[in-house]
Amino acid sequence: MITLTTDFGLKDPYTAEMKGTIYTINPNAKIIDITHDVDKFNIRMGAFMLASAAPYFPAGTVHMAIVDPGVGTERRALVVQTKKTSFVGPDNGILMLAAQQQGIEHIYELFNPQFRLPNVSNAFHGRDIFAPATAYLEMGVKPAMFGPEIAEVILPRFSEVKQQDDCLIGEILHIDDFGNVITNIRPDTLPQVQSLKIRLGDNQLDLPLEKVYGRAEPQQLIALTGSHGFLEIAINQGNAAKKYETKIGDPIKIIFNS
Amino acid sequence: MITLTTDFGLKDPYTAEMKGTIYTINPNAKIIDITHDVDKFNIRMGAFMLASAAPYFPAGTVHMAIVDPGVGTERRALVVQTKKTSFVGPDNGILMLAAQQQGIEHIYELFNPQFRLPNVSNAFHGRDIFAPATAYLEMGVKPAMFGPEIAEVILPRFSEVKQQDDCLIGEILHIDDFGNVITNIRPDTLPQVQSLKIRLGDNQLDLPLEKVYGRAEPQQLIALTGSHGFLEIAINQGNAAKKYETKIGDPIKIIFNS
Amino acid sequence: MITLTTDFGLKDPYTAEMKGTIYTINPNAKIIDITHDVDKFNIRMGAFMLASAAPYFPAGTVHMAIVDPGVGTERRALVVQTKKTSFVGPDNGILMLAAQQQGIEHIYELFNPQFRLPNVSNAFHGRDIFAPATAYLEMGVKPAMFGPEIAEVILPRFSEVKQQDDCLIGEILHIDDFGNVITNIRPDTLPQVQSLKIRLGDNQLDLPLEKVYGRAEPQQLIALTGSHGFLEIAINQGNAAKKYETKIGDPIKIIFNS
Repeated sequence: MITLTTDFGLKDPYTAEMKGTIYTINPNAKIIDITHDVDKFNIRMGAFMLASAAPYFPAGTVHMAIVDPGVGTERRALVVQTKKTSFVGPDNGILMLAAQQQGIEHIYELFNPQFRLPNVSNAFHGRDIFAPATAYLEMGVKPAMFGPEIAEVILPRFSEVKQQDDCLIGEILHIDDFGNVITNIRPDTLPQVQSLKIRLGDNQLDLPLEKVYGRAEPQQLIALTGSHGFLEIAINQGNAAKKYETKIGDPIKIIFNS
Repeated sequence: MITLTTDFGLKDPYTAEMKGTIYTINPNAKIIDITHDVDKFNIRMGAFMLASAAPYFPAGTVHMAIVDPGVGTERRALVVQTKKTSFVGPDNGILMLAAQQQGIEHIYELFNPQFRLPNVSNAFHGRDIFAPATAYLEMGVKPAMFGPEIAEVILPRFSEVKQQDDCLIGEILHIDDFGNVITNIRPDTLPQVQSLKIRLGDNQLDLPLEKVYGRAEPQQLIALTGSHGFLEIAINQGNAAKKYETKIGDPIKIIFNS
Repeated sequence: MITLTTDFGLKDPYTAEMKGTIYTINPNAKIIDITHDVDKFNIRMGAFMLASAAPYFPAGTVHMAIVDPGVGTERRALVVQTKKTSFVGPDNGILMLAAQQQGIEHIYELFNPQFRLPNVSNAFHGRDIFAPATAYLEMGVKPAMFGPEIAEVILPRFSEVKQQDDCLIGEILHIDDFGNVITNIRPDTLPQVQSLKIRLGDNQLDLPLEKVYGRAEPQQLIALTGSHGFLEIAINQGNAAKKYETKIGDPIKIIFNS
């Protein structure tokens, strides 16, 4: 099984060109899209998407992820082997959040020209280098065959949650298509409370800590534990991110009783 | 074969998390997307989408549909067995238009914790409850294994066409991506005419009843029988819904010769 | 293997209805989406998308492409057999750019009612005529079985690059989702230079000819050879088409040193 995570969108033929390349080498491949709608060039968002979905795929899956503003430059290409699956993509951090969660065993530079298309363009390594490598890897070619083992790679930059005197400062990891605002804060690090006081942009908000979206009134603002275990700010049947003009990367402050 | 109909969009990893969950349990599954772009929380639109596509899938298909504003509340989950296929989703009406068309044999509450992921979040039953049930059902687990048989379920609310003295009042079932306005009126219930007088929003329109889009002039407004047998208002190579600011659920009046 | 290229979008159930129809006839089919986001009714854009992706699919693939403003009129339906694959779609040019690249062997009218759904709507031949034909073709039904061989078909209209005294006049073939502006000019027809002077809309621009996107400064305007071998105007990590308000079909002029 092979998964794809990119910022290519679904309008252009690019994604299909990668799939055709994989199927030409490996006709029995099963390819599943994680998403092709990562914000353009947003490596961190791609890393979060891949790390969210990867735990739900079977052992032995090959995860290919391409958000690649450095395509054609000297940035390296990687094959990462973990205890459970393997990952293929550029060395810019996109693979590493998901790979670290699974326990990294070896990292190789994707280098061996034997596992590329005969003509490599400078503009589209997803098709010409990463897709063939993914196809061969899924067919059983050993990760070590793709190039030399390497020790240091680029990691994605995510903020740590900061504890201050009377507050916790986190950041917005993701805004989903429902407008739910997903933070990097784990609710089990919070004191046992029934409501939260938060600062989000220019807004100071008091909101109840609920267990589910649907038990609040329609259009009510709530906080809850989202499906990946992070604190999430949501409006029941509404769009919280739009209402509070929140963006990925914004800070969020949880203010404790003062 | 498994189909998916949701309001999750394709940007987030949610759909992929459900697919990975299905493939982990049932590696030979074949999953086809009906759509993930149902308007958020619009159960009725989801029901119409599923009922439009389901007749074209083979006997034995398992149709999973998730538009689920009540996730985590006491709304029930269902497995519906029809003469041809089966359906998995929340008990809010989304499954029932399609299921009724096929002839319902049994409805079971999806209840048995044996067929769930080990950890069930409160925010994402699509992944944690519905996807595993769908995977097991497609592998041959009997519908009765999932929980007790139940008799009463929630039905989606669609208006009936109303006949008045000199007019027929229907409603807009769907606006498609071409801007074609799909009504709930069956053209074979209309008198044999060559043109129609309609009222749509603030517009009083006279338009020819055509057999095909392409025989009219470009940008001409026409009525025709659409691909699901409903009366459709369209602009040849144009966008009728945008021009007349029509929305799903709006009324449409067909006025007979006065 | 079957590919699909349409202007149907992914919101409506139309694409799924075609897939269900194919799988009902041919349960072992493997269907890959090239794109469903061709601009509505834009045959030329569909032809370009299909011709871009088709070379990357294996021999024996059946490519189905539907951008079909003439559905239900007397426009013919085609099965095109090339040296490598086959193509199914309307006779309006959408198939022919890709088919000609592969070397056409035979063109047949898709006519035989044996290979249709029992009920053919006037509004949706993609589902009722083209999908069944595609399914049967992929199962091994000979192209000649679908109807009489024909000699003349409609070709898509693309401009040729024109050479004038001191300039080359090309046109914009495609704007991709990154905003990269893809022209119909082959860089190997240009003199060996390090920078280009171009006219694009009202803009007179001097820009360096780079090998890759990522070696320029962020937000710098560059020209390079894109992944299909055409001259491309791009902004590194930006959107060139939006900045210069460029549309598909616009002219572009390359001005030589005067």
